[in-house]
Amino acid sequence: MKLLRYGQAGAEKPGILDQDGRIRDLSAHVGDIGGRWLAPEGLAAIAALPLDSLPLVDANTRLGPCVGGTGKFICIGLNYSDHAAETGASVPTEPVIFMKATSAIQGPNDPVEIPRGSEKTDWEVELGVIIGKTAKYVSEADALDHVAGYCVINDLSERAFQIERQGQWTKGKSCDTFGPLGPWLVTKDEVPDPQNLDMWLEVNGHRYQNGSTRTMVYGVAFVVSYLSQFMSLQPGDVISTGTPPGVGLGQKPPVYLKVGDRMELGIQGLGQQAQVCVSS
Amino acid sequence: MKLLRYGQAGAEKPGILDQDGRIRDLSAHVGDIGGRWLAPEGLAAIAALPLDSLPLVDANTRLGPCVGGTGKFICIGLNYSDHAAETGASVPTEPVIFMKATSAIQGPNDPVEIPRGSEKTDWEVELGVIIGKTAKYVSEADALDHVAGYCVINDLSERAFQIERQGQWTKGKSCDTFGPLGPWLVTKDEVPDPQNLDMWLEVNGHRYQNGSTRTMVYGVAFVVSYLSQFMSLQPGDVISTGTPPGVGLGQKPPVYLKVGDRMELGIQGLGQQAQVCVSS
Repeated sequence: MKLLRYGQAGAEKPGILDQDGRIRDLSAHVGDIGGRWLAPEGLAAIAALPLDSLPLVDANTRLGPCVGGTGKFICIGLNYSDHAAETGASVPTEPVIFMKATSAIQGPNDPVEIPRGSEKTDWEVELGVIIGKTAKYVSEADALDHVAGYCVINDLSERAFQIERQGQWTKGKSCDTFGPLGPWLVTKDEVPDPQNLDMWLEVNGHRYQNGSTRTMVYGVAFVVSYLSQFMSLQPGDVISTGTPPGVGLGQKPPVYLKVGDRMELGIQGLGQQAQVCVSS
Repeated sequence: MKLLRYGQAGAEKPGILDQDGRIRDLSAHVGDIGGRWLAPEGLAAIAALPLDSLPLVDANTRLGPCVGGTGKFICIGLNYSDHAAETGASVPTEPVIFMKATSAIQGPNDPVEIPRGSEKTDWEVELGVIIGKTAKYVSEADALDHVAGYCVINDLSERAFQIERQGQWTKGKSCDTFGPLGPWLVTKDEVPDPQNLDMWLEVNGHRYQNGSTRTMVYGVAFVVSYLSQFMSLQPGDVISTGTPPGVGLGQKPPVYLKVGDRMELGIQGLGQQAQVCVSS
């Protein structure tokens, strides 16, 4: 299933794509794409609904972030060996974890704000993992049982805030609008191998990132298990699993986003996003 | 006012201390100690309630975290010059920001879990700041207008996870039970000078931390303004402003928590907490 949330920011309704790619309204049956609806029982209840009889939604409606009620937005740093190389870092011997503020989450096509004083706002296409069932001290073998599905994420990053403004990356990762999620949550049954998905990102039509989750250092199951050793994961939590090469920081010379720039990005089978940069 | 949340974990009700220190039930009048109730209008509405006629609550009830619906749990690192010295770090030239997972939040007297594999679980008494009104690009002069009040926080930290397990402190700061908040949210009208509060922490009756917010490097108003340049702050967000000297890591030799240890900690005017360490 391709689950989504549509409508006004902060008041999104749950929806689903039908077999023709049209949006159907789930709000008569489902509270939100979040919480208990992400557990196996919740997803099964959605799957059992008569899709063709659900109300159609205007195709031009705004899409919100594809999951609601996210308590944690956790990121894995330097998780593609070739991206680590382009930033001058070595591949970490175990996953690097950092957090983005959940207030950075927005819809997949909402404008991205260039923060005040920013000169180094950068892009990062990433595979997002959405937790469906609480995970604490789970094994790698059982980890995917706790995953509801996947989505596209643009892990926007202000490199000066992140690297030059006193330790800890959170500062450059958490600005409002720095976390577009979606367009949809694709349930894991439709993603048989999350470690074999092509992914790409373009700015103003120029393709900067062109990678695949094949080159991820720590795969999804390992990452979910690993994180669950340090904190419990809850339904609706989002894990952004790192970016392949081609970020702005890695260009020679570096290239950063400016007001008016347009990003497009996508992952095989998970849909695509488009954002225009605006001033904050 | 001293606002609190009491009852079963995850189903806490709002309450308030009366002039005799007894807990009164607010649930007939207030949705939660969180969200819109933390704005000036919400707090004024609570202040206007006839306190003596509200139902009394059993004094032995469990206290939950003193604020609900926290979207961000932001911490300031190395924010006391003498604590920076004891950890071997220099005072940062601007605030160091990191995040704790909101899933680490718990009641002030709930047991603290020593994570599996942990040998370096440590304590940190800190002044907590609770946001009452959205703050984005606010000046230092206006910053306290966005604060609802203050509370005691124990910023529990696993030093090996934090420092020895590959970059970014989140990993050692976010374990379940690592964020006791409370006992109460003391509204800012009762804290005329947040930069002049004595604070202390004892383990098994031995006083390890004995400090004051007087020696904080970056004060509350500066920190709120500073954070709001990097991300918007929302009602219910919690900022933990750093710890004075005396953490376990700073002892010679270092001292860490083990199962059965009992912590007591408090801040002048904000009440106190007590936690027993258990296995996870």
